[in-house]
Amino acid sequence: MTTDIQTLMTDLGRRARAAARVMALAPTAAKDQALRAAAAALRTDAPLIIAANAKDMRAGEAKGLTKALLDRLMLNPARIEAMAKGLEDIAALPDPVGRTLAGWTRPNGLAIARVAVPLGVIGIIYESRPNVTADAAGLCLKSGNAAILRGGSESFHSSRAIMAALSAAIAAAGLPVDAVQMVPTTDREAVGAMLRLSEYIDVIVPRGGKSLVARVVEESRIPLFQHLEGICHTYVDAAADLEMAKAVVLNAKMRRTGVCGATETLLVDRACADTHLKPLVSMLIDAGCEVRGDHAAQQADCRALPAVEADWSTEYLDSVISVKVVDGVRAAVDHVNAYGSHHTEAIITEEAKAAEAFLNGCDSAIVLWNASTQFADGGEFGMGAEIGISTGKMHARGPVGVEQLCTFKYVVKGAGQVRPG
Amino acid sequence: MTTDIQTLMTDLGRRARAAARVMALAPTAAKDQALRAAAAALRTDAPLIIAANAKDMRAGEAKGLTKALLDRLMLNPARIEAMAKGLEDIAALPDPVGRTLAGWTRPNGLAIARVAVPLGVIGIIYESRPNVTADAAGLCLKSGNAAILRGGSESFHSSRAIMAALSAAIAAAGLPVDAVQMVPTTDREAVGAMLRLSEYIDVIVPRGGKSLVARVVEESRIPLFQHLEGICHTYVDAAADLEMAKAVVLNAKMRRTGVCGATETLLVDRACADTHLKPLVSMLIDAGCEVRGDHAAQQADCRALPAVEADWSTEYLDSVISVKVVDGVRAAVDHVNAYGSHHTEAIITEEAKAAEAFLNGCDSAIVLWNASTQFADGGEFGMGAEIGISTGKMHARGPVGVEQLCTFKYVVKGAGQVRPG
Repeated sequence: MTTDIQTLMTDLGRRARAAARVMALAPTAAKDQALRAAAAALRTDAPLIIAANAKDMRAGEAKGLTKALLDRLMLNPARIEAMAKGLEDIAALPDPVGRTLAGWTRPNGLAIARVAVPLGVIGIIYESRPNVTADAAGLCLKSGNAAILRGGSESFHSSRAIMAALSAAIAAAGLPVDAVQMVPTTDREAVGAMLRLSEYIDVIVPRGGKSLVARVVEESRIPLFQHLEGICHTYVDAAADLEMAKAVVLNAKMRRTGVCGATETLLVDRACADTHLKPLVSMLIDAGCEVRGDHAAQQADCRALPAVEADWSTEYLDSVISVKVVDGVRAAVDHVNAYGSHHTEAIITEEAKAAEAFLNGCDSAIVLWNASTQFADGGEFGMGAEIGISTGKMHARGPVGVEQLCTFKYVVKGAGQVRPG
Repeated sequence: MTTDIQTLMTDLGRRARAAARVMALAPTAAKDQALRAAAAALRTDAPLIIAANAKDMRAGEAKGLTKALLDRLMLNPARIEAMAKGLEDIAALPDPVGRTLAGWTRPNGLAIARVAVPLGVIGIIYESRPNVTADAAGLCLKSGNAAILRGGSESFHSSRAIMAALSAAIAAAGLPVDAVQMVPTTDREAVGAMLRLSEYIDVIVPRGGKSLVARVVEESRIPLFQHLEGICHTYVDAAADLEMAKAVVLNAKMRRTGVCGATETLLVDRACADTHLKPLVSMLIDAGCEVRGDHAAQQADCRALPAVEADWSTEYLDSVISVKVVDGVRAAVDHVNAYGSHHTEAIITEEAKAAEAFLNGCDSAIVLWNASTQFADGGEFGMGAEIGISTGKMHARGPVGVEQLCTFKYVVKGAGQVRPG
């Protein structure tokens, strides 16, 4: 069995590599045509996709999946329309391939350009959100990459029905049908085999919960675009406007508590604790948020619970926040760098110097001044759709959109130059 | 013993991380002052460094190191002056940190900027070239990173003497002395321990022979900037000017045969084999190069030897070249992508369409039109010194200079924006 799976995955990899060579040279028009045709095919195939999804839903219910998981798995006409619209939005983005990122001429006349090219083959490993099948395939197509998709076993039939629509559209646009492939088995060994295909896969994007990402980080021999956690902080400085601080903190924590850009820890400058701490803590509790605070935060509102050491490094993904008073911006930066996950941090202040110290000092992918951490999103950044958010420092940091799915090559034009010496 | 080494390396890593936080915020003037002071210290300490090197040389001779290795190891006043000059050249480069790489404003007024920041901690693992100690330290300092250097055991005393000069200069400039640390043991276990320090080291640069790089690739849990091999190709197209082709091919192969940008395989278009093949093959043999050719190349000059399959994927690093006739530019691209190492490839042609097909089709870090593959070098690219050349696709591709030792962060400035919906 193991050998069979490895053979199957190697074959998938080899075909993806061959398709990637064609995709790297594919004209913009063909890629956009495939994306628009895929959107149309999703709409046409909606009844088939919903029927396949019903099969997954019945199996999921029988298996006792939680309500939240079943909701993620469920497809209906509105969700299929959102997928189709997503593909059309990707088609409307500028082609990231072929952009000249930098160019200069050497004294010897050599003209050097850094030109954007696709990464090659992208592997996406995700859980049971069938829409990722369409989103990830669309982003890879647009950026001239080939994709190997490995979705959760619970959404296998849904993803297969979506794939059928995508494949037909890709072929109709004259592009290689192997440009987007789905792992045709739910065997868990296929994930391990995929993580060893370093010859054929250039980057892996794990999308899912912490345990999935942790497994991929542990096993992968292939570079990853990933974030394990989003332990995001909002720091309210002594020079913060209280009303702005309240509005931003409430949004940063409570707009959606389950997203990676949600604030998990509120830091308040000791110099304004007297005036700012109580209004912030009480506002959060009034909004239904559990506050786990240090001594000062507990004093500020008797409904606050005590924080323990583990709270400072916990991603709640829920209506819970940890609150701490710190001695100014330097202490805030130290706390963020010690306990955070290098994702997204915000400072609220009217003072440019404090902002600069915070923005420069935090070793995180995204740092904000007077805005909500919930803006950590490729769409909100104006990058179009994103395949994920990276907290790594290599290559892609922050939202990973079509530009980040490209690398570059140096193209050097000469007139017969040889190197002396 | 193992535990001691791991403890030692973890301590080194922790101190490097702390120093990196300071270095990331260090003013340009302090970094440049440290680099110039280090150059001065190398000159002042030259007698001490040469005495330490003599110790290494005696041990190397006793150990029976090859003449080539002893030559790499040897330091003299000219080589120390070259190291000092190298540091001054790095000081004269623009500061890569803090550059705004991109910036835009969103409809809601958020101002988003992508700003260059240091990677953090760079680990450099190298063999017995003591000059790497100064070069690598200089590049890391300039780019605001901390460095952990692990040189070859044969150059231990030389590197330690160079480090003493660097450390004094770093301290005198008011920068943390832990910004550049040297692994204080020649125990081979220290390399393994270093490759597991993913919490403290952001990227590893292995510099050395294939066996060193292969070991690092196999063991590292940390991203790498590396190239295993430079199997570089020059393709002479039907539309090549013969005289240019001869000059470029001779330089690409023979200028220096031991560098990674040296051409290892010459591909000649069948359409010009009648006119171009014999002059090229005979010229190479006349210049003292062994030619291992396919049937046509052997026919062109009876001194040519037969190539076997392994020749197409061999990096000779010597006066040896493999020569093959191919059916035009597409076949040349297929050969390069199948047998090459994604490093550097050149096409010689007067025809823009053929050049475009080759430049776009080759999946390599550097592609050249009418110029020698020996230009694959950060200095020749105008990037100043390089810490190495990367054939990976992630983050840095081609020469790795001070800009490539940076990553970026998104700095977002708002006026209290919260995310709707």
